[in-house]
Amino acid sequence: MTTYDIPKPTTELDDAIAHKINFKTKPLGALGQLESLAKQICQIQQTLTPVLTKPSIVVFAADHGLAKEGVSAYPQEVTHQMVLNFLGGGAAINVFSEQQGIDLSIVDAGVNFDFGDSPNLIHAKIAMGTGNALVENAMSKEQLTNAINKGAEIVRDIQSKGSNIIGFGEMGIGNTSAASLIMSHICQIPIEKCVGRGTGVDDDGWQKKLDILKQVQQKHAHLADTAALLQAVGGFEITMMIGAMLQAAALGMVVLVDGFISTSAYLCAQTLEPNIQHYAIFCHQSDESGHQQMLEFIDADPLLKMNLRLGEGTGCALAYPLLQSSVDFINKMASFESAGVSNKD
Amino acid sequence: MTTYDIPKPTTELDDAIAHKINFKTKPLGALGQLESLAKQICQIQQTLTPVLTKPSIVVFAADHGLAKEGVSAYPQEVTHQMVLNFLGGGAAINVFSEQQGIDLSIVDAGVNFDFGDSPNLIHAKIAMGTGNALVENAMSKEQLTNAINKGAEIVRDIQSKGSNIIGFGEMGIGNTSAASLIMSHICQIPIEKCVGRGTGVDDDGWQKKLDILKQVQQKHAHLADTAALLQAVGGFEITMMIGAMLQAAALGMVVLVDGFISTSAYLCAQTLEPNIQHYAIFCHQSDESGHQQMLEFIDADPLLKMNLRLGEGTGCALAYPLLQSSVDFINKMASFESAGVSNKD
Repeated sequence: MTTYDIPKPTTELDDAIAHKINFKTKPLGALGQLESLAKQICQIQQTLTPVLTKPSIVVFAADHGLAKEGVSAYPQEVTHQMVLNFLGGGAAINVFSEQQGIDLSIVDAGVNFDFGDSPNLIHAKIAMGTGNALVENAMSKEQLTNAINKGAEIVRDIQSKGSNIIGFGEMGIGNTSAASLIMSHICQIPIEKCVGRGTGVDDDGWQKKLDILKQVQQKHAHLADTAALLQAVGGFEITMMIGAMLQAAALGMVVLVDGFISTSAYLCAQTLEPNIQHYAIFCHQSDESGHQQMLEFIDADPLLKMNLRLGEGTGCALAYPLLQSSVDFINKMASFESAGVSNKD
Repeated sequence: MTTYDIPKPTTELDDAIAHKINFKTKPLGALGQLESLAKQICQIQQTLTPVLTKPSIVVFAADHGLAKEGVSAYPQEVTHQMVLNFLGGGAAINVFSEQQGIDLSIVDAGVNFDFGDSPNLIHAKIAMGTGNALVENAMSKEQLTNAINKGAEIVRDIQSKGSNIIGFGEMGIGNTSAASLIMSHICQIPIEKCVGRGTGVDDDGWQKKLDILKQVQQKHAHLADTAALLQAVGGFEITMMIGAMLQAAALGMVVLVDGFISTSAYLCAQTLEPNIQHYAIFCHQSDESGHQQMLEFIDADPLLKMNLRLGEGTGCALAYPLLQSSVDFINKMASFESAGVSNKD
């Protein structure tokens, strides 16, 4: 796998950043998480006057061979139907991106459907869905490398057009199964604690999903590393997102992480390049069971806790105004001195 | 006290609202709190196509006689200094309101300072601060009535200019003390569990604040009703906010509640007119100890949980984009049918 050189931001400005935040006209620490957010963005950009330019969200879509085992409440064709919905502007991520002025890109990372020309779609199809992890590897080594590289290439293109903040979403019927398998392996948490309701399986559906994922784990019992894990369980959208996240951090962009599936991609990225943690902002805590444990594993404090479980990058879009607020307060608020306000004794 | 006739929204549209939300292209319930938010706004406006017009935030500022007992980490003059900072555009609420396109109004409800003409200030001074609750009533019955009526009048004026959503913030050194006393009385929770750090008192300061508030409770041991409570402990900004909240709900506006002090005003408003609950949206859970218990008392599920403790209405401004998102998704997202997406079996 290609490696990405992600520098750890220097600590040179840390004292100056803390001073600027602490002497704004507010009690010490009174802006809570917005203050740590402002500090992180200043560190990433190595400045006391951060800016967010051309915010972007990329949604990677792909199908999963495992979906034919019945791990989801929805049929597989919903993946391509939802891609068409994204292209038509009717999905939640379209609505929220438009509201926030976020550029939205939709990527066919491996959907089991021929989209034809579709000028607004980024064509990066690795295959017509992954292999069925129950009986074979989800992808070959070459497909893995191609997916990682393609994700990185898409990000370089977006960054070259002026974006310095990027969020990642996904669509893929069956992908909470892949994410649960990734979580279980990396966090070393038993699979039954990693499996949730996904798009809404009932009790019987949940048990069936769990049984199948246990069989997948038995089938792929010996996995040498993160690359082997991804080859075994997929999917293309998750793998492409990993390359995208690594490249974004390597370029010094702010990286927005969405929900359960996006965080599973992040887990892989952090395993490969631990310094990505300095660039990542966790946008929300999903209602999908397991996400909270993932976030605890990486010691992340998500911005929103609103019981969302939609994916598509919706958590990134909804959290974006909070990032803008953090940047605005550090740039625009008066200090005690400039406003002539008495500070605490 | 003037009473306000707040109608309970009819349930006629509830089934249609639920249907519209449930058939958007997303798994059932996948937008979590945004869905309950959309439902509530539809109910308030009695429509399937809600709109938010001219969002407004009003910040009420006033001083507290009790401040001279040393209940705050900051000196009393910070109240008027911060009002000048609001008027100069340098405070957090200025920055966030500007970001969100929210109209901001600053009200002198009773600051111990002569602001002169100040054309951008709403002059509604009841007195140069409340009386010291340790030795006397914070306000007279007439002052109480005037404050309630003035708050309502300010809201009628804003609503007449086209606003249908309004949030309320406050500034007043010493006002976490008044809010703690209100909370203790209405929620019947011992005062030691209602007292927090406010703007940041240390351990000794906290103990001193608690001792003083216990003495205030002894001084005003027999309070007949909410009006008597407010007369006893104040403050003018809290009281004016109560009138404002009641009037806003009576006019069918969406009412945004901010943090600890604003929620104490809401507690009084709900005690006076329980139907206000249908119009109120709780914007955030403050880091101020006690706020969580207040929210539990009224069974409120706040939108943001970001450890803010600034007041000024900042939680309302920061949460506003989420309200816009809830309105946007119900108006703009495609349905399964319109997008040709297969629904769950």
